[in-house]
Amino acid sequence: MNKLIERVKVTERKEKPDPSSLGFGQYFTDYMFVMDYEEGKGWHRPRIAPYEPVTLAPSASVFHYGQAVFEGLKAYRAADDRILLFRPDQNIKRLNRSCRRMSMPSLDEDVVLEALTQLIDLEKEWVPRERGTSLYIRPFVIATEPCLGVRPSKSYTFMIVLSPVGSYYSSQLEPAKIYVEDEYVRAVNGGVGNAKTSGNYAASLQAQQKANELGYDQVLWLDAIEKKYVEEVGSMNIFFVINGEVVTPALSGSILSGITRASVIDLLRSWNIHVREERISIEEIYDASVRGDITEIFGTGTAAVITPVDELNWHGKKLSINDGQIGRIAEKLHQTLTDIQLGKEQDAFHWVVEV
Amino acid sequence: MNKLIERVKVTERKEKPDPSSLGFGQYFTDYMFVMDYEEGKGWHRPRIAPYEPVTLAPSASVFHYGQAVFEGLKAYRAADDRILLFRPDQNIKRLNRSCRRMSMPSLDEDVVLEALTQLIDLEKEWVPRERGTSLYIRPFVIATEPCLGVRPSKSYTFMIVLSPVGSYYSSQLEPAKIYVEDEYVRAVNGGVGNAKTSGNYAASLQAQQKANELGYDQVLWLDAIEKKYVEEVGSMNIFFVINGEVVTPALSGSILSGITRASVIDLLRSWNIHVREERISIEEIYDASVRGDITEIFGTGTAAVITPVDELNWHGKKLSINDGQIGRIAEKLHQTLTDIQLGKEQDAFHWVVEV
Repeated sequence: MNKLIERVKVTERKEKPDPSSLGFGQYFTDYMFVMDYEEGKGWHRPRIAPYEPVTLAPSASVFHYGQAVFEGLKAYRAADDRILLFRPDQNIKRLNRSCRRMSMPSLDEDVVLEALTQLIDLEKEWVPRERGTSLYIRPFVIATEPCLGVRPSKSYTFMIVLSPVGSYYSSQLEPAKIYVEDEYVRAVNGGVGNAKTSGNYAASLQAQQKANELGYDQVLWLDAIEKKYVEEVGSMNIFFVINGEVVTPALSGSILSGITRASVIDLLRSWNIHVREERISIEEIYDASVRGDITEIFGTGTAAVITPVDELNWHGKKLSINDGQIGRIAEKLHQTLTDIQLGKEQDAFHWVVEV
Repeated sequence: MNKLIERVKVTERKEKPDPSSLGFGQYFTDYMFVMDYEEGKGWHRPRIAPYEPVTLAPSASVFHYGQAVFEGLKAYRAADDRILLFRPDQNIKRLNRSCRRMSMPSLDEDVVLEALTQLIDLEKEWVPRERGTSLYIRPFVIATEPCLGVRPSKSYTFMIVLSPVGSYYSSQLEPAKIYVEDEYVRAVNGGVGNAKTSGNYAASLQAQQKANELGYDQVLWLDAIEKKYVEEVGSMNIFFVINGEVVTPALSGSILSGITRASVIDLLRSWNIHVREERISIEEIYDASVRGDITEIFGTGTAAVITPVDELNWHGKKLSINDGQIGRIAEKLHQTLTDIQLGKEQDAFHWVVEV
């Protein structure tokens, strides 16, 4: 594989952006990884190329019929300058599950990991040092065949781009206000809710805008069928701490299988905190909160890491969670996860991979 | 507006493809229409440009978060060489409805119609003459902002491309075999099923492939909630002729509001055939078919025009419709619609617009 990745050198390295104003997904590094697929030929020509525009026919399938899947993970700089990845194998496996659901060709997982590693190794200088920053890694596959027939494309491009980022929200561990959406829905069983595909995000924007206009940060989606059961938040999975136990919606088929979600469950269990993955209705949550049984609500995600929720609005009924304070479990999870990701904490689960 | 559309000339006209092997959406004409949108600036720089690749940042929003909507309509060449469009105003209105649902900026409908007309006028030679052929028109809008934050893009491109096409299926009025899908779903109320957005098509491919492997041409979707009520077929709306009445699923919010569908309803009613738009279960269809009450099933769509259905497979139960023969109503609708589109029949509804 080493020899297989062709490299074209950039003539000049870009200037690195100011680490205090990185934002999210606005700056990109000097290089990207690219690989092509053609029916009959398979995936071919893996290469590290200068970060540059993509040129596609106006009839390219991705513009019309939306075959597009992606992943998101981060590279962290440890205190000793090692560059660390968090569970990249899980992202690569999920990328392939998304590909299969969207009738797109799957990728050789070893090739993707190797590509990721080589690209990040080349771009190590771009991994920022400041607290809360990281190098966001965006692998994605798009359908490129220039034909308007509605059928799976016969050609694709796989790319990995890298973006130095601050924290996704304006500050670390700032609590979020969540609006429970009961008009729009995100996904339904039998649909593509458990694939990380572009259309799911486009479908979520209208509700997200509505929530923002009402002064909320994110939307909590309910199930599409009964509009009763909690599914996930815009860009996070959701957890509730009820009477000292942690409850999170079971992966129903319409929920994204979050890697931070899985890691949080493992961590909690290792601390002997009981975690239940089950169907939870919003009404149960409301009632438990009114009774004072809910001590914390938090979201989990690669971009969000751990985000405490301090207010939930359901049908105009506002629940204030833990008096707007960050909960003990969310705080400990955030600390532990970021310490593992930064190589400060012993990595008992073998989640971290050094580049 | 006339002056507003800037034109860049192609240096050389392409050779026209053989009209007998056009297929669908494979060849494109010499020119396209392009217009840009930027937040704060609105839609600007409408232009007719040579048909050429689109250049986008790898981080362009359409690749990641799928904001993409489109339309499809056709220009027909009348016997007297006039170029005719069929209800373009309806496509433009639907394009704007799709834009609004997907949090994309809507377009000035007059500007789009003018752009369409000027482009087709310039490309008239490309409208083929042969029976069953036409110039397919694909207006579409894609999100172009180079940023990975999940929110509506701040910039977009609107394009119109033109493709000379044969009939969508291999031959005119060849009956299709339909597989009733009861595992995968296309859309759900509260979702984006009634928007013509790329993600709906990507979400349909897996079921379409399954149907193809089983020897069927297209999928008939059931409602996502009870998997009981008929919604639509892959690229068509669906109609049933039951005891001399015509029944089609009511627009429920998850069904695409087809322009051919609406036109067919108007035509049937003008012939004093009773049309009911209502919720119809697949079980009712099955029972009616077993009783011999169903004389025809057909699909309607811009690409498909009128496509008779000669077999329906529901849970392995196969229904043969009208002994595999094309029904009288489907045939008459096809003849009348294509005659109106080609300017052969009096256009009582004022559907046809001359370019």
